[in-house]
Formats: sequence, structure tokens, C-alpha cells
Amino acid sequence: MNDILTYISNNKEKFLKELVEFLKIPSISSISSYKEYMIQAAEWLSENMKNSGLNNVKIFPTKGHSIVYGEWLDAGKEAPTVLVYGHYDVQPVDPLNLWDSPPFDPVIKNGRIYARGSADDKGQLLIHVKSVESYLKTVGRLPVNIKFLIEGEEEAGSNHLDEFIENNRELLKCDTVLISDTEWFAEGIPSICYSLRGIAFVELTITGPNRDLHSGTYGGGIDNPLNVLCWMISRLKDDYGRITIPGFYDDVRPLSKDERENFKKLPFDEDEYCKDLGISMVNGEIGYTTLERVSARPTLDLNGIYGGYIGEGAKTIIPSKATAKISMRLVPDQKPDDIISKVENYLKNIAPPTVKIEIARLHGGNPVLVPLDSKGIKSAVKAFQNAFGKEVLFTREGGSIPIVSTFLEVLNAPSVLMGMGLPGDNIHSPNENFSLENFYGGIKVSALFLEEFSK
Amino acid sequence: MNDILTYISNNKEKFLKELVEFLKIPSISSISSYKEYMIQAAEWLSENMKNSGLNNVKIFPTKGHSIVYGEWLDAGKEAPTVLVYGHYDVQPVDPLNLWDSPPFDPVIKNGRIYARGSADDKGQLLIHVKSVESYLKTVGRLPVNIKFLIEGEEEAGSNHLDEFIENNRELLKCDTVLISDTEWFAEGIPSICYSLRGIAFVELTITGPNRDLHSGTYGGGIDNPLNVLCWMISRLKDDYGRITIPGFYDDVRPLSKDERENFKKLPFDEDEYCKDLGISMVNGEIGYTTLERVSARPTLDLNGIYGGYIGEGAKTIIPSKATAKISMRLVPDQKPDDIISKVENYLKNIAPPTVKIEIARLHGGNPVLVPLDSKGIKSAVKAFQNAFGKEVLFTREGGSIPIVSTFLEVLNAPSVLMGMGLPGDNIHSPNENFSLENFYGGIKVSALFLEEFSK
Repeated sequence: MNDILTYISNNKEKFLKELVEFLKIPSISSISSYKEYMIQAAEWLSENMKNSGLNNVKIFPTKGHSIVYGEWLDAGKEAPTVLVYGHYDVQPVDPLNLWDSPPFDPVIKNGRIYARGSADDKGQLLIHVKSVESYLKTVGRLPVNIKFLIEGEEEAGSNHLDEFIENNRELLKCDTVLISDTEWFAEGIPSICYSLRGIAFVELTITGPNRDLHSGTYGGGIDNPLNVLCWMISRLKDDYGRITIPGFYDDVRPLSKDERENFKKLPFDEDEYCKDLGISMVNGEIGYTTLERVSARPTLDLNGIYGGYIGEGAKTIIPSKATAKISMRLVPDQKPDDIISKVENYLKNIAPPTVKIEIARLHGGNPVLVPLDSKGIKSAVKAFQNAFGKEVLFTREGGSIPIVSTFLEVLNAPSVLMGMGLPGDNIHSPNENFSLENFYGGIKVSALFLEEFSK
Repeated sequence: MNDILTYISNNKEKFLKELVEFLKIPSISSISSYKEYMIQAAEWLSENMKNSGLNNVKIFPTKGHSIVYGEWLDAGKEAPTVLVYGHYDVQPVDPLNLWDSPPFDPVIKNGRIYARGSADDKGQLLIHVKSVESYLKTVGRLPVNIKFLIEGEEEAGSNHLDEFIENNRELLKCDTVLISDTEWFAEGIPSICYSLRGIAFVELTITGPNRDLHSGTYGGGIDNPLNVLCWMISRLKDDYGRITIPGFYDDVRPLSKDERENFKKLPFDEDEYCKDLGISMVNGEIGYTTLERVSARPTLDLNGIYGGYIGEGAKTIIPSKATAKISMRLVPDQKPDDIISKVENYLKNIAPPTVKIEIARLHGGNPVLVPLDSKGIKSAVKAFQNAFGKEVLFTREGGSIPIVSTFLEVLNAPSVLMGMGLPGDNIHSPNENFSLENFYGGIKVSALFLEEFSK
């Protein structure tokens, strides 16, 4: 292991040079005229993977942008297999005028490299390629079998990835998935995210009269779909911030005492939080802290509402229809289909007979929880501690990373979210940057993780 | 009086010929390229008024379309003065393909004249010009002083009428205003509308966080403006359909026993009503019938609501803002400013401290009630009974006719709504038509009204 870590220390300049090359390619997946840069980025990456010692490196075409694959499988059948997932595409750069330096002309300043894609995700994915290189150029072998699945459409919806994974189950078979595409809880605080919320998204449409009516002529005589909608929505939560849909909490795994202790360790300044959001106070489910509420408890939020006249000024109609988009973030072990059925039943039960209601199922995704005592998490913790010499904190993420569900459902493989980003990286924004300490440290973490995971 | 009624009977053909001429002019006020037809219609009308014996006939220019004025003031200072209000402009004709005959080529079929403007309002305003003619061409004088104020912008918002009335108080001074621009409750049932609802219109905007947030990252931790909006709206009415704003009903004049008896006389088929609207049942304030609810009781209706993502599909945001347009129909003696202040106070009181709220005052209009025992109403009842030989029913209108408030406020003159239209007239729709029985009968009613009102 020492040879490997020494190789990493001695080759920082080389690694950085390669990262700069990679970042210079403006591989924006969502702009069709950038197609040639997407091809260029995929080719650069596959060359780099080959040069790093990976075998069977291929560029798989999809209906969209290509997927880059590579592997090293000579660790033997007894050794576990790690699948590294990442993406070589980047976000658009608008508004360009807010960048301090050109987004595709990397600049190093104060220990950070500034460029679009530096943290999200070129810098983070390259960590693992360089970790593999560090093994193969020194001891000539890896302690595990490894596969790379690097897509080019993450910033454009990953539209062809699920299909690719489903059609290549054997090729992608693995024991765990390693993903570096998230960030630490705060600078200087290495953290591992072990849980993601799922989602259940419905659209509720209420129809009253068969046409928009004059509110003078008809007002007071019939139920107004907009008023009914508000009334129904108001009945989805009680005065304590709890969701009133019968059975909604049935499958919620309670937070363990250990988990709540973990949450307490995370630095969180509620005043700063409110200040940043421009609100005077937080609010949510009774009995939980803000960090617990936004990541470890299920929610119900309206994401959109519309009906009637929405232009400037006054128009006196009773509209025929009113619509609300309602999403629920789910936690283990809630199931999207089950939750949506419960929502449907409840809404149907409380809807007055004066209106018709329709509920469209828009979207569902499972929550994810990787046990803290699983091999992947334990290995990551050790790798982090060895690389950075600091205690690793555990976090839960309030959002969803759909690919993590796909890996679990299709490949039966849990993911380790070994993010090396920091909250100040400005991903998706002007002046995106990546900490070089985390870049070099990440290569070490990756190398140490592979060693730990092989045990 | 007999000479006058005989003149009316003998000149039906002449009157109809004139109505046809008037209807042939496509005086659509809201289409700027029809300006020359607007001028043509104003000139035709002023000529007809002169030929009918009116004096001092003038076309007053405004910043929009002109106002036609005429008078006959030789009844003496002791005689009352009646101001006839009407409009010579008409609605647009789209969709043209749904008309059975060209909208400006009048066709007579089954006792009705089909043309845009036939009922709204050329046919109805001409009634009063022809009534005046019938007096002046026979007995050579009228029992009252009379003034005509015929505008050309009623279908385009009457944008310059209030200003004209305010600037011409002396010219327009009168004891009552006579308006034929409404309809009977049902065919064969002459009715007089003696009350209109007022309106108070506000826009409520709720601001939560200073930007749209990711509902995964922030969901559960802060109040969502859309959910708050629905909750606040839901608290504006109780489970019995009553408005919960403190003091809202303070100035509501209760329905008298006589008025409720009048309501019962009006033919109303609730099943047909629901069928027409495509609803399974009516709903409203407890203790009142549907007709009372839609005309004699105050209301609170949402006219529009919006916030967050309103496109197709799912987008997982917690929006920064949410807006609702809220209108209240008012009944005597509620005052718009007072009601809006009460709404504002209540909304401010119930708003949670987690959000900021703004309330914009969009619009206000006073309710109107002309006492059933006033001279104008009593004269109209007698005129209707003599002309049609039927009992006259009393109605209240749920909507507002702002000009009626203006006449009351600026000229201190109550209006008599002597509408001669019928529910099947299709005003504002294809195949607008006007019953010839009501046209000729209306001239008689007008003549008889002037006689009654002079007593």
C-alpha cells in the first residue's frame, strides 16, 4: 500500500495535468451543437482509462451520448467486484458573465481548480481512474475486480442509462457501486451519505362546472374548484406538521438512537440557514430537528398549483378546473406505489360530491438506505479516516439519486456515496471549482477503499 | 295615451326597418380597424334621434369612441327628468362559423330578429327612442323631461364613461336612470331587477424562501408557500359555507320575508341548472336557496391561483411565491373598502410567521338596491303589467353593473333596470337575437313608464 500512496504523492502534477486536459473539453450534454465535444470527451476518457491500465475499454453508443466502459478483472473469482459510476458530461455555463475565468480554461487559485465540470463530475470520476493507475503502475494488480461505467447524459436526465444497465446485467455485475458525485457536509468534514429519500409524485385535478362561469351570476351557488382544491390540500397535514393520509407512516423506519446521535454531530447553524433562505423561521414535523426533517422524515409538498385567471389584474370567473402538483419525499421502507394508492384513496374519500377529481401518477422512486454496518460503508469510513485523519460523519440526503435505486433494483448492488465535493464547489453555477486537497486526497481514499473492500 | 299606443301599433314595420338599418352597421368597439363603423353607428343614431323629435342631439368625442347625447326638456321644471342609458357598440362575432346567418345581415325567423347587437343593446336602446317618437309625433310632447346618454364602449370596458359623467353632472342631472340592457328571468315572465351585487377583489401573494428550492434538499424543513396559501384559503369559509372573516356580515341587509316570497315565485329547476353546468349538486351558504345564494347573499370565490411549476409533468421545487386572486360579491349595505380592510386584517392575523404576505386591492364596486316601493320601480311594474298583461316578478342580479353605481354616486340617481331581453337571446355568442314581441312590447312599456313616472 505504501508504494501506491507514494505513487499518488509523486504524481500529483501528472494527475492535475490530465484533469486540466479533461476539463478543457466543453462536454455539455444538453446542447446538441456540442455533440462533437461529447465525442471528444468520451474518447479522451477512454484513452486515459487505457493508459491507466484498464482493459476492455469501450465506447458504447446509445440513442443519446455514449457510455464509456472499462474493467480490470484479474483479481480472481474470490475477490469482490466494484463498479465505479460517474459522468463525463457537464452542465451548461450560463450566465457566462458571472464567471471570473472562462469555464473551459481551468485556472488554479487558492488550492482550487476553477472550471465547469471540475467537481461535477470530471474531477471526482478521474479520482478512481487515477487510483486504479496507482495500483497497476506500482504493484501491477488491484485487490478487487473493478468496472467503470461512465455516462454522458447525467446532466440531461440520464435518459438511456437504465436501458443500458438492464441490457448489460452480466457485464455490470458487481458487489457494490462506488459513486463520487456528492459533497461533504462541510469543508474539512469528510462525510458519507448512507440514505436517500424516494419520491411519489401525483397531480390532482378538480373539475367543477363544465365551463368557466361568471362569478357574479353563479358565485355562491356552486362549489368553486379552486376553493375545493385549497380545502382538500389543507387537509393533508395536521396542525403539528404531520401528514394525515391514513397509513402514510406505516412503513417508515424509525430513526435509531445512533442515527439521531449522528445527526447531532453535524454542524448546523439554523440562523444562518434561515438567513440564506430569507425566512424568519423554520417549520416542520413536530418532534424532529431541521436536519432530520429534510433528510430522514417523509414530506408532502405542493410543487405547483394553478387554475382560473392567472394574468395581471382581476377577472371574475369561477374556473371549471383546478390543478395541484403534489410530491411526497419518502424514507425507507415506504414504497412509492403504496403511498400513491393511499394518497389516491384519501383524496377520493375527502373530495366533496360537488366536484370530480382525477389523480395522475406522475413519478415514483424508492428510498435507499445502505446499512451503516455494511461492508461498503465500513470500508469507506476506514479509507476516509486513513486518508484525511479525521472522523467521518454520516449524512442522509433529502433528495433522490435515481441511479442508486436502479443499481439496487437491477444489479442488486448497494452504492457507496463516496463524494469528495464541498458545499462551496458551485456546481451547476458560475465559478464551479474543486478542492485540489480533495482531488489528491480522493485518489488516496479510493485506493484505500479498494484495499479495505477486498478484505 | 291611446294615440301613442296606436302610433306604436301602426308603425311596427317602420320601427323594424330602422332597427335593421342600425344592426347592419358592424359597430364592434374592441376592434380598432372598425373605427369607421363606430362613427357610422353614432351618426346613424344621432340622425334617428333627431328625426324622432329629440333636441340638442350631439356626438361627444371621448379619448375612445364617441358618446351620443339627445334631450327633450320641454315638460317643465315641475316634471321629473329621466335619463336613458344604452350603448350602440356590439361584441365581436367570433366564432363566425357558428352563426346560421351573417351577423350583420339581420334575418327574421320565428318572431325573432337575428343579428349581432339585436338584444345587446341596439334593439333595447332603440325602444326608448321610438317611445319618444311615438309621443312627439302624436301628442307633440312628453309627460317628462328626457335625456339620452348612449355610449360606444360598453363592450370594451366603458373606459371613458365615468369621466364623461363626472364632467357633465349638470347636463346629465336627472331623477332616475332608465336602462334596458338586461333580460327577463325567463321567456314570458316580465321581470324587474332591483338589486345588483357589488364586488371587492384582492390578490394575496405569499412569499416563503427568497428563491425556488429543491424539494428534496429542503422539503420538510421549511413552510412551503403553496401549502400555506391553501391552508389560509381554507380558513376563509366554515363547514357551513359561511365566510369566517370577522365582521364580514355586519352590514348585510337581511332578506325580508317579502323578498324571500318573491324569490319563491321565480321558476327555477335545480336539476336543469345542475345539468346545464355538468355538476351533480349545488352547494353554498347554509339556510339559503340557490337563487338567494347567487344574487342576494355575499360570496367569496377564488378566481385564480398560481405558484410553482405549472407545466407538464413533474418538477420538484418548493416555490418562493404563491398567489391567489380572491373576489367577494357584496350585497347592500356592505362597502368594498370596509370589506377589503376586514379581509386584509384577517389574512394578516392568520398568516403564519414563516412567510410574508402581500395583499393588493385590485377592484371594488358598491352593491345597489333600488327600494321596491320607489317611484321608478312602481312605475316600471305598472308599465309592464299594462303592456304585457302579466304579473311582474322581481329579481336580484348576482353580478355588478358598474355604471349603475356611478349613476347613483355621481348623479345621485337610482336606476330602473327595465331589461327586455330573454335568456335565449345568445348575447355575446353566435346567433344573437331579439324577440320582436319584446321589441314592440318594449316600446309600449317605455311609453307607459314615462306616463307613470310623470304622475
